[in-house]
Amino acid sequence: MARLAVAARAFSASASAGGGVAMVQGASRGIGLEFVRQLLRRSDEGRVVATCRAPGNAAELQKLKEEHAPGRLTVLPLDVTDESTIEAAAASIQETHGSLDLLINSTGILSIPNVIQPETTLSKVQKSSLLLAYEVNAVGPILVIKEKLIAPFQFSFLAVVVGGRSETGRGFSLVANMSARVSSIGDNGLGGWHSYRASKTALNQLTKTVSVEFGRKDNIACILLHPGTVDTDLSRPFQRNVPKDKLFTREFSVQKLLSIIDSVKKSDNGKFFAWDGQEIPW
Amino acid sequence: MARLAVAARAFSASASAGGGVAMVQGASRGIGLEFVRQLLRRSDEGRVVATCRAPGNAAELQKLKEEHAPGRLTVLPLDVTDESTIEAAAASIQETHGSLDLLINSTGILSIPNVIQPETTLSKVQKSSLLLAYEVNAVGPILVIKEKLIAPFQFSFLAVVVGGRSETGRGFSLVANMSARVSSIGDNGLGGWHSYRASKTALNQLTKTVSVEFGRKDNIACILLHPGTVDTDLSRPFQRNVPKDKLFTREFSVQKLLSIIDSVKKSDNGKFFAWDGQEIPW
Repeated sequence: MARLAVAARAFSASASAGGGVAMVQGASRGIGLEFVRQLLRRSDEGRVVATCRAPGNAAELQKLKEEHAPGRLTVLPLDVTDESTIEAAAASIQETHGSLDLLINSTGILSIPNVIQPETTLSKVQKSSLLLAYEVNAVGPILVIKEKLIAPFQFSFLAVVVGGRSETGRGFSLVANMSARVSSIGDNGLGGWHSYRASKTALNQLTKTVSVEFGRKDNIACILLHPGTVDTDLSRPFQRNVPKDKLFTREFSVQKLLSIIDSVKKSDNGKFFAWDGQEIPW
Repeated sequence: MARLAVAARAFSASASAGGGVAMVQGASRGIGLEFVRQLLRRSDEGRVVATCRAPGNAAELQKLKEEHAPGRLTVLPLDVTDESTIEAAAASIQETHGSLDLLINSTGILSIPNVIQPETTLSKVQKSSLLLAYEVNAVGPILVIKEKLIAPFQFSFLAVVVGGRSETGRGFSLVANMSARVSSIGDNGLGGWHSYRASKTALNQLTKTVSVEFGRKDNIACILLHPGTVDTDLSRPFQRNVPKDKLFTREFSVQKLLSIIDSVKKSDNGKFFAWDGQEIPW
């Protein structure tokens, strides 16, 4: 977050002295939690807002909060399926932090016992699973990005960082939405996982659509990221066929993703990157 | 439907003497209605099942029914947002026709006054619109394709046409899902229309996913079609900026789409074609 910190120091009037403000949505575990951990480690000043459905149950986040100076980590409740919690989190962030330099949407639903399972065949596809995956994986992140851009107080949920910047510095804020390679239609040679695939493909389209608008009038870029297959709760039931060298630790994957976030250019707005920086076809 | 008729005559044990059976889902108006009209005109034997939400109000379909020999056109109620109507239509088709050689999913929702409107900007995106467009445009067609493939009577909603065929003949059944060029992520240079775009992009992914499975074990191909901008109720509010030579009649568009349906090969399974036969990037 080095460059973001610089951008925030120079231009973000509403932010405090320095360090920038990053939000990780879906931060109680897995990749989201690791983003919080590594972002906090990157500077002594940057502040992180971590959101999850039930902060009271998020022991790891609470531990991180205790380990860092007061104010560096804020943990807020946010359930992407409940718009009122998105609005409440946005209002709280506005009051405490003004605006964000970086927003990472990291929530994702793949399987919940007795609720949703990655489908192995069309005959197992359920309407309820299709709709739930869409609501969490596609609609949720877009509602978080939308929130407060239309607020009556002209508050932007994403900092619109304006002014002259050196060509190597970052003169824009960034939204990074966690997608997955299985969302690629062109790359879909295996089939299955209908609900998850379709929801993440829709997220790709929504992110691209939003990026066109931001590219036109705002100083914000939106990108999509594929973390690789990472050893998390989400992937655990499906790791059997993954070669050992292709199953990443959360530390490794998030290091790679943050290096993409660091080096992304405004002209990368709307693109979809894998953990190794390669672009993924739609 | 010439080739389909041949395939049906030769192999479809459950179908009657000849002509094949095609279903058009979403047939009360626009492109769906025109598909019904042209399919009926193509042979004296082919049978068409037309579905729509309220057959009683579908005057054009009822008129077509009267104009043709008894049994050539069956009109059934089917609302893609109501699974019980999909199941009921499937049961009725099984009883009367056995199975289908061609299924065209032609429903699509873009705008309904006071309910859903194509969004010009992110700030106008509503959760209800995102979910409704997804339910109608993406979930609906997939539930229709799924229906009865898992029926207890081993009935296949789509005819599995087996046996030796000449290389030029068609030895497979076809599902054609109506998509739209705005669903292409790679081609999205304008932004806007979030709900519609995302739902049709998800339909593309779901169709591709289903095509992988069908390609592996069934003799069914699935394709996606872009009809061009056609003079229908759906496009009417948005025709102002369309050059006259780019605004097609329904007759022209459906002629072009049927010629694609006629000439498609098994190796085209999972592809996305525009009205002129060009493949559209994902």
